[in-house]
Amino acid sequence: MKYSFKNDYSEGCHPRILEALVKYNSIQQNGYGLDEYSQNAKEIILKKINNPKAEVHFVSGGTQANLIVISAFLRPHESVVAVETGHIFTNETGAIEATGHKVHGVATKDGKLKPEDVQKIMDLHTNIPHQVKQKLVYISNSTEVGTIYSKRELQDLYEFCQEKKLYLFLDGARLGHALTSETNDLTLEDIAKYTDAFYLGGTKNGALIGEAIVISNENLQKEFGFHLKQKGAMLAKGRLLGIQFQELLKDDLYFELAKHANEKAMEIKKAFKEQGCSFLAETFTNQIFPILTQSQIDQLSRNYDFYVWKKIDEEQSAIRIITSWATTDEIVANFTNEIKNLK
Amino acid sequence: MKYSFKNDYSEGCHPRILEALVKYNSIQQNGYGLDEYSQNAKEIILKKINNPKAEVHFVSGGTQANLIVISAFLRPHESVVAVETGHIFTNETGAIEATGHKVHGVATKDGKLKPEDVQKIMDLHTNIPHQVKQKLVYISNSTEVGTIYSKRELQDLYEFCQEKKLYLFLDGARLGHALTSETNDLTLEDIAKYTDAFYLGGTKNGALIGEAIVISNENLQKEFGFHLKQKGAMLAKGRLLGIQFQELLKDDLYFELAKHANEKAMEIKKAFKEQGCSFLAETFTNQIFPILTQSQIDQLSRNYDFYVWKKIDEEQSAIRIITSWATTDEIVANFTNEIKNLK
Amino acid sequence: MKYSFKNDYSEGCHPRILEALVKYNSIQQNGYGLDEYSQNAKEIILKKINNPKAEVHFVSGGTQANLIVISAFLRPHESVVAVETGHIFTNETGAIEATGHKVHGVATKDGKLKPEDVQKIMDLHTNIPHQVKQKLVYISNSTEVGTIYSKRELQDLYEFCQEKKLYLFLDGARLGHALTSETNDLTLEDIAKYTDAFYLGGTKNGALIGEAIVISNENLQKEFGFHLKQKGAMLAKGRLLGIQFQELLKDDLYFELAKHANEKAMEIKKAFKEQGCSFLAETFTNQIFPILTQSQIDQLSRNYDFYVWKKIDEEQSAIRIITSWATTDEIVANFTNEIKNLK
Amino acid sequence: MKYSFKNDYSEGCHPRILEALVKYNSIQQNGYGLDEYSQNAKEIILKKINNPKAEVHFVSGGTQANLIVISAFLRPHESVVAVETGHIFTNETGAIEATGHKVHGVATKDGKLKPEDVQKIMDLHTNIPHQVKQKLVYISNSTEVGTIYSKRELQDLYEFCQEKKLYLFLDGARLGHALTSETNDLTLEDIAKYTDAFYLGGTKNGALIGEAIVISNENLQKEFGFHLKQKGAMLAKGRLLGIQFQELLKDDLYFELAKHANEKAMEIKKAFKEQGCSFLAETFTNQIFPILTQSQIDQLSRNYDFYVWKKIDEEQSAIRIITSWATTDEIVANFTNEIKNLK
Repeated sequence: MKYSFKNDYSEGCHPRILEALVKYNSIQQNGYGLDEYSQNAKEIILKKINNPKAEVHFVSGGTQANLIVISAFLRPHESVVAVETGHIFTNETGAIEATGHKVHGVATKDGKLKPEDVQKIMDLHTNIPHQVKQKLVYISNSTEVGTIYSKRELQDLYEFCQEKKLYLFLDGARLGHALTSETNDLTLEDIAKYTDAFYLGGTKNGALIGEAIVISNENLQKEFGFHLKQKGAMLAKGRLLGIQFQELLKDDLYFELAKHANEKAMEIKKAFKEQGCSFLAETFTNQIFPILTQSQIDQLSRNYDFYVWKKIDEEQSAIRIITSWATTDEIVANFTNEIKNLK
Repeated sequence: MKYSFKNDYSEGCHPRILEALVKYNSIQQNGYGLDEYSQNAKEIILKKINNPKAEVHFVSGGTQANLIVISAFLRPHESVVAVETGHIFTNETGAIEATGHKVHGVATKDGKLKPEDVQKIMDLHTNIPHQVKQKLVYISNSTEVGTIYSKRELQDLYEFCQEKKLYLFLDGARLGHALTSETNDLTLEDIAKYTDAFYLGGTKNGALIGEAIVISNENLQKEFGFHLKQKGAMLAKGRLLGIQFQELLKDDLYFELAKHANEKAMEIKKAFKEQGCSFLAETFTNQIFPILTQSQIDQLSRNYDFYVWKKIDEEQSAIRIITSWATTDEIVANFTNEIKNLK
Repeated sequence: MKYSFKNDYSEGCHPRILEALVKYNSIQQNGYGLDEYSQNAKEIILKKINNPKAEVHFVSGGTQANLIVISAFLRPHESVVAVETGHIFTNETGAIEATGHKVHGVATKDGKLKPEDVQKIMDLHTNIPHQVKQKLVYISNSTEVGTIYSKRELQDLYEFCQEKKLYLFLDGARLGHALTSETNDLTLEDIAKYTDAFYLGGTKNGALIGEAIVISNENLQKEFGFHLKQKGAMLAKGRLLGIQFQELLKDDLYFELAKHANEKAMEIKKAFKEQGCSFLAETFTNQIFPILTQSQIDQLSRNYDFYVWKKIDEEQSAIRIITSWATTDEIVANFTNEIKNLK
Repeated sequence: MKYSFKNDYSEGCHPRILEALVKYNSIQQNGYGLDEYSQNAKEIILKKINNPKAEVHFVSGGTQANLIVISAFLRPHESVVAVETGHIFTNETGAIEATGHKVHGVATKDGKLKPEDVQKIMDLHTNIPHQVKQKLVYISNSTEVGTIYSKRELQDLYEFCQEKKLYLFLDGARLGHALTSETNDLTLEDIAKYTDAFYLGGTKNGALIGEAIVISNENLQKEFGFHLKQKGAMLAKGRLLGIQFQELLKDDLYFELAKHANEKAMEIKKAFKEQGCSFLAETFTNQIFPILTQSQIDQLSRNYDFYVWKKIDEEQSAIRIITSWATTDEIVANFTNEIKNLK
């Protein structure tokens, strides 16, 4: 069997989660997120973001989080601005449009949205009421191409949104990786402070399933539970989500796992660099995009699985290598050895 | 702490599932339902229903299953016929309407839909094209009030649907309990044969989450995966669903758990009967609805939690007692003792 | 050719409208409702309802008005309460559900909704957030069965809605007929005062097309134009709607036409009464529902078209006779003569 | 009052339509499109396209036509490909997305879609089922920028669509102008033959309101009436649409009006050319886009209204001049005189 670097959800979950599932298994709890573990996990998150007035809701996955948040926040004529590589724009089978809202895609080099990008879309939509009204800005951190927002960038975007009466929503499917990246200067508290809502991803960082939606803007908290239920996201055994986030967050496990994934990626990146490879983008999270020749790709493919991400020219393509909380030192050692032998 | 008979999802999951989660945890798998366990579980189901051409999809919960199946099957002007106690009519926050489709509710005594009930709705909608067109019939087995369909009843309804070009969809959140009820004469194969689609519920029968959607009508199978993704139901770690259904179905565990729940309910029912209680409905599954005086309800409430379901008169109300795979003999012994002491 | 009493939209429009269309035809105007005639018609309506802060929008038809108003006012989890005979519940091909909202139908004898009817629906939906939230009450005046609301009834319902934070929306497709009925005690100003929004029907009272939506609740006025456009209701030549309402409302033509229709209906009703007929409902607007034997129905059908509305028993059925602004004295004289000859 | 060249819907309708409205006004007709005039107009269209199996439906406006056709044809996960200047992409307040479907926008120079444009979008969406499935291609003729499709271009696109199992839908809000353009080589019959559905615009070519939807693909005709009703497009007095199309199409009035508009535009174009102006695009329909200096724009603006369409550089902008069936020779004479005096 080849080892797969295709994604960060190939394994099950961190063993501590399994232990907790076993430990609490026979204790009766209320359904639908009203269990003790969910309550506890919510409190832990509110403390970590230092905002007792925020609201936390757990859902199963990222597409679900995105479609529920966006459809709950917007009126029918309001639209979303995202980058063209944004998950909602291209990788969720039209989930947002299926709830009735247009998503504007902005071409970018680094997967990050800037105030001027949003302004440009707004400038194209001044023919009221014949055009949709931009109301929500969707960003990801880390982005789909592995880059991260700096504190300055996030603040600027949030201030722009505040001024333009736009909501800022951050998809944090890989937020752990962003916040533990060596180049990061944001805290979880910053994330909560400089967005109207965001979510903290569990699926790609050690959980079986689970994303924790955090709504800081109090005006947007109202009756959110109805939307969870209507969209099929309210698990009868909400305990499954509560237990996982409790275990990941009661100490720093969540961030340790993400940091580990980043470090393993950086080790692999270093090996490629030492071979003289260039990269599609300079990333410091758990995704790297080295550019290889076809024969190098073939060579690595013998023992490893990964996506060929983008054709660069007739001879070269960028591949994507993703590490995770589950990537072992041994695997990385073997893989970097193979890299060193690339011709 | 009181013991709760409020529902069948108060505990975690059957220990064998936890063991399997541990066992397979570090084995890398493809995401999005393409893992080995899901494939295996699908094959087991196809064998059990004896129809290799059916399609199986796993989702997290019942509301999700209902909204995806119905919105995938119907065109915009088509509607659904259900009983008024049907889960989609009243307990899913308008999930079906949110996908654009009207649900007609039929008042019934026993929670079961008959051909004449559907015909009556159709007779009220002959003013084409000014009224919605009935296209899908939604039933539950066991029903929300604990009753079950006989083979004759299901066949009659399916033949009626075939004749009227209606799809028959069966919500099987508690299908295990229906099929192991002492009065049941249906098999899982019958369920697949006499419906266009149905689902086999895991959440209420020993799983952490999970419902297995089975689509027998080949015309309705096309491109179903798109709908799963669009509605946020496609788990990155689909293995979580696959492992659970594999464990529940690789032998007869699924049916043993349901049968256990039914037997515990029948023991409790017997105790109430011996006290001279009457019941809101005669049920043979894991839900019973004894009618008690307020003082009896108060007495039982000291040590047990349950829902007061329906007021009967000034003095009496029906309560709902639900048992599950996790209800122990000891609990039942204690509870029946308390029942014997009811005044 | 038989004369038709089947509905009140069988002819074109009042001649004064045609004259105005000719008169203004070559005068250039802004599109999309920004023409002088629309502006003028809006001002006339605001004066008639004595509320300069209300907002007026013209659309083509009733279903369009209903679906735009309701989808613009509600959040995704909110529902509508209506009577079972309400146009949106049964005669608009699921238009409201197609925008995502459930409509609850209440069985009534007279087609009118009372506070206790709404309360009863609310009492069935207290399981938050597992059920939809009632937010808008939809009524018609006159109703689908020809009855009208008294001032007391409308006030009571509005006060109830205010108390329960529900919006009250009145479908006025036949509001002219209601307000000019001999038993009416409501004014147009009352209608605006005791609802959050309503519309004044043109199509069934002398216009070619057109309903005037009036939104009194200022919180609901915001960005309404976007919804008109998005749902395809904003006519490029909005002048067509403006000219018609200007002509109907600049003096009392609108009310004279409705009054005429009512009077013709009452003359026909009198003739049936003198023959000893009973009626399905006691109505004082332009719809009457006399109960006839099959042989009487056959006799009348020789020269007149009308709907057989409801079977009463083996021998008798109620028919529906609708008059309009276009029903002439001569036609009524001929018809009442035939009625006098009924056996 | 300035004369407006801002659009082709500033006046009422062609006088012959008004005459017909007067002539037929008091003749009783069935409602909802079942009147004689609508039937007659449908037959005329079927003859003109030489396809008795096509289906025709009349609606009020273009946005309505677009949203009903597209939502009736597509399943929830299917998407639309259009040019970025396409009316549905940018000028209909998200009407298509509001029915649940994503619209992909393709940047083009001439407003026309080519097979390779569509293929490029399809190539970006091969990750099944994580991305929407392209199913309908939307084009306009003439386009939003005044250009037209040649027979070769339309055939190529249709063949491509057939091969890829895509529907081809043509927005013909200005189809009359396209088909009477001096450079056109398409017939109405071709349009019907090389599309699955299209509509023939009345609003911008002499009618008060009205677009005639023609569905040639028999698989797409089924139960279309339900969609018209559900979206609020089925006028009670469908006669208003029928009479107009009957009058416009019973002889060649429709095409004469469009040709007149084109000729007036060409006269104005010639005048600009003689002044040495260049144009944003070379058009031969009723829209021209001359590029002028700010001082020239100011000069023309004294007596005429028009849109400044696009800034070219610091000194120059393209303006848009639209003519219509109602643009008189006298107006054009005056305007070309002013053009001749431009500095």
